[in-house]
Amino acid sequence: MAEVNAPEPPHVALKDEAVAWFRDLQARLVAAFESIENAGDSPLPPRRFVRTPWTRPGLSGGGEIALMHGRVFEKVGVNVSAVSGSFDAEFRRQIPGAEEDSRFFAAGISLVAHMQSPHVPAAHMNTRLVITTKGWFGGGADLTPMRPEAPESVADTAAFHVALRAACERHDADYYPRFKEWCDRYFFLPHRGEPRGAGGIFYDHFFSGNAAADFAFTRDVGLAFLDVYPRIVRARMGRAWGKAEREHQLIRRGRYVEFNLLYDRGTMFGLRTGGNPDAILMSLPPLVRWP
Amino acid sequence: MAEVNAPEPPHVALKDEAVAWFRDLQARLVAAFESIENAGDSPLPPRRFVRTPWTRPGLSGGGEIALMHGRVFEKVGVNVSAVSGSFDAEFRRQIPGAEEDSRFFAAGISLVAHMQSPHVPAAHMNTRLVITTKGWFGGGADLTPMRPEAPESVADTAAFHVALRAACERHDADYYPRFKEWCDRYFFLPHRGEPRGAGGIFYDHFFSGNAAADFAFTRDVGLAFLDVYPRIVRARMGRAWGKAEREHQLIRRGRYVEFNLLYDRGTMFGLRTGGNPDAILMSLPPLVRWP
Repeated sequence: MAEVNAPEPPHVALKDEAVAWFRDLQARLVAAFESIENAGDSPLPPRRFVRTPWTRPGLSGGGEIALMHGRVFEKVGVNVSAVSGSFDAEFRRQIPGAEEDSRFFAAGISLVAHMQSPHVPAAHMNTRLVITTKGWFGGGADLTPMRPEAPESVADTAAFHVALRAACERHDADYYPRFKEWCDRYFFLPHRGEPRGAGGIFYDHFFSGNAAADFAFTRDVGLAFLDVYPRIVRARMGRAWGKAEREHQLIRRGRYVEFNLLYDRGTMFGLRTGGNPDAILMSLPPLVRWP
Repeated sequence: MAEVNAPEPPHVALKDEAVAWFRDLQARLVAAFESIENAGDSPLPPRRFVRTPWTRPGLSGGGEIALMHGRVFEKVGVNVSAVSGSFDAEFRRQIPGAEEDSRFFAAGISLVAHMQSPHVPAAHMNTRLVITTKGWFGGGADLTPMRPEAPESVADTAAFHVALRAACERHDADYYPRFKEWCDRYFFLPHRGEPRGAGGIFYDHFFSGNAAADFAFTRDVGLAFLDVYPRIVRARMGRAWGKAEREHQLIRRGRYVEFNLLYDRGTMFGLRTGGNPDAILMSLPPLVRWP
């Protein structure tokens, strides 16, 4: 973005380091999930991630989908991308700093896990750096138990929030309450009057005034997720389930699809900027029922 | 809409007759599909439609979902509704004639059929009357074979278009080419560069200057669908299929969901105007795979 006619946002100096971080976090998450896959107790063999690099016409840079269809993880994607391009005329009006210059840089990591067991919550984690004539970090992590009111789900949700709260509090006492509330507001299906899941944190277009500090916070969000979600999966994956629980899981997954296609800003951003639909729609569950 | 301060659109005089027509067409479609269900050749028993009337806070009037989960029709909904309400401030700017007065009347029939057999095309038909300070009819019908290039699908698609063309040509020589092209443009997934199906006709915000003639045309669209789609189902439903064909069908259904939630105007209209989400999302397939 050195060509942009304006004082450069300080985020430009962090681009390479951020891209390297997203790759590093991807590698750690892949290793953690493959290790869980090995530990799974199932007649099926453990599975591995399959990596598919991609580029797209009209975008420089590209990304990599790492996707596993396993015996514990029914479908889990851990995608990274780092692309530069131009927003179209209509879309740039919706993006901070893009009115002046349509060019953008966007890099990030995006993870969605849909589990075989209805007792293991689905999860989402995504962090990103976006640079237009402005720069910001954004992201978050949230948990989707199939029965949020069940005692195990309440415990998992509490552990998840404890981990994210700790990551937030290392940086600013305001972050956790602010970003938790933002998450509750964001992951909500107005047509159902229902939250998508049990929350977490969400932040976007975020620049505290110190880009390096925001990057450190963004790294800690990823590390908190890397710590807590595998613990939740290991604690719940051994429990047996039956047909009724599976059916309920398939129906709950429909809400996930409804949210992602009707309301999710990241999905819209990706599809509208010519991103790879296979990478963007990796978030959609492997099997879904609308009864 | 007698309260609207403007010369009433001539559609107001057709409201009762249109509502009665949508109900009548629903009854005929339900009868035709239950008769096919009886003729199905399967160890499962034939099933029947279940009717669920609904009302919604903030809307006067209501609707009825008629839904069948059968041995031929895996999931088929034939919904009618007739409601009056008010558009919210943001939405009314997108609706013809609603800038001046936010009140609207909308009545229609909406049908989506997802079939057990991957050899039987899915189908959609929807016609409606909408009145703001303006009035119009809209709707259409389109066919979604799972493998549009297969010879049987080419034949089914041809038969479907012949029926719709005949309905159009009874009214205006321009309708079929115009509304066929509109359908191809409308039922398209830009993020995939793919059409949703094999087309049909689509028209919206349509007022020829003669509301009674537009109503007669709208009736003929429904009758053409009532004639041709049951014939296609009967011709294809007996053919055996295997696991690979079923898997392909489940994946193709994902495209249907993507279109309906990302782009469909009717879905958006319903959800944004406080419609019944169960009725609106009846269009979503019973089981879907995103691999």
